Amino acid sequence: MKSVFEITDQSIIGDLLDSAEYGTLALCENNRPYSVPVNFVQYKDALYFHGAQKGRKMGILKTNDYASFSVVESHSLIQSYFSSTEGLACPASHFFKSVIIDGQIELVKDYEEKIEVFTALMQKLQPEGNYRPFTDKDYTTAVKATAVYKLIPSERRAKFKFGQHLDTERFEMILKHLKERGSEKDLQTITMMNTFREEKTI
Amino acid sequence: MKSVFEITDQSIIGDLLDSAEYGTLALCENNRPYSVPVNFVQYKDALYFHGAQKGRKMGILKTNDYASFSVVESHSLIQSYFSSTEGLACPASHFFKSVIIDGQIELVKDYEEKIEVFTALMQKLQPEGNYRPFTDKDYTTAVKATAVYKLIPSERRAKFKFGQHLDTERFEMILKHLKERGSEKDLQTITMMNTFREEKTI
Repeated sequence: MKSVFEITDQSIIGDLLDSAEYGTLALCENNRPYSVPVNFVQYKDALYFHGAQKGRKMGILKTNDYASFSVVESHSLIQSYFSSTEGLACPASHFFKSVIIDGQIELVKDYEEKIEVFTALMQKLQPEGNYRPFTDKDYTTAVKATAVYKLIPSERRAKFKFGQHLDTERFEMILKHLKERGSEKDLQTITMMNTFREEKTI
Repeated sequence: MKSVFEITDQSIIGDLLDSAEYGTLALCENNRPYSVPVNFVQYKDALYFHGAQKGRKMGILKTNDYASFSVVESHSLIQSYFSSTEGLACPASHFFKSVIIDGQIELVKDYEEKIEVFTALMQKLQPEGNYRPFTDKDYTTAVKATAVYKLIPSERRAKFKFGQHLDTERFEMILKHLKERGSEKDLQTITMMNTFREEKTI
């Protein structure tokens, strides 16, 4: 059964990946986990990130290319008294968006593909431009010296938690408290709560 | 050799863990990675998190208790032109704090320890209180129904990247640009840059 928090719309998932500054890459070495945060870009149905030519990440990937990559957009903490009528701590919660992408990683060796990836990454993180294009020959040494990794997704799981499971009374109580607390994050959370509440009832 | 970004002061690492709302837990199942974001609390030299009694996380932990847990505090994106004098994209960067904790996970079965953990978690995420203490018998069923996990750290690696590797000219250029852009995050980044620059030169 599909959870009330599950998101399957690939454009919604894509938007989250486009707006995230970083994600966490998890790998396995001899059945022991290794995790590391990385900047990344979504490009042509894959995720790309870059790093040094040597190091632990590269060492692990040579023997085990399976990866689990997660991205989180943290929204409001929901205090228990926002929706508790009996003074219990249990309703305390945290609203968020998350996507987890499992797949396998390839090293990108083609020079043209590497500069396409760097161009996409810069367009994501520095959309205002103001740098020379990667076709400039002054980049050659740096591009060759940098390892570019391509995560080819086999499964995506997205969970957006914004009170979709709550009855109307508790949902409205939370909206009221978020409005009162009124931080920028809380106001964004309110928008998300209303957006995904509507999707549920369509 | 210790990297210029490496942080070994355990109180600085502890502060990051205390202020983080969530972290990403990475596990391995048959040498394939599984990752999931979780809320957590640092308590008595371990990290604790909770979840359902059944599910994939619990299933994996029954056969492989090794974990890699990562926490990130994302600071400013550093645009390439903040410090590039030749118009190249290469100086583009992202300043952040991160800590990665490797260890093994135990299931907490003792009722008293479970309510100590829930109390610590609420003190972290809802310091203003406003809920009945967990010694109240109305929590008994919920406490018994919730799985509590304890990550016993074997290794902590913390990396704080705030331009410690830069020469004075580039460092000052970045400070100037961050001040001009002037978001709340940028002003916090400036404070961090100065803090960790000083630590380096002591």
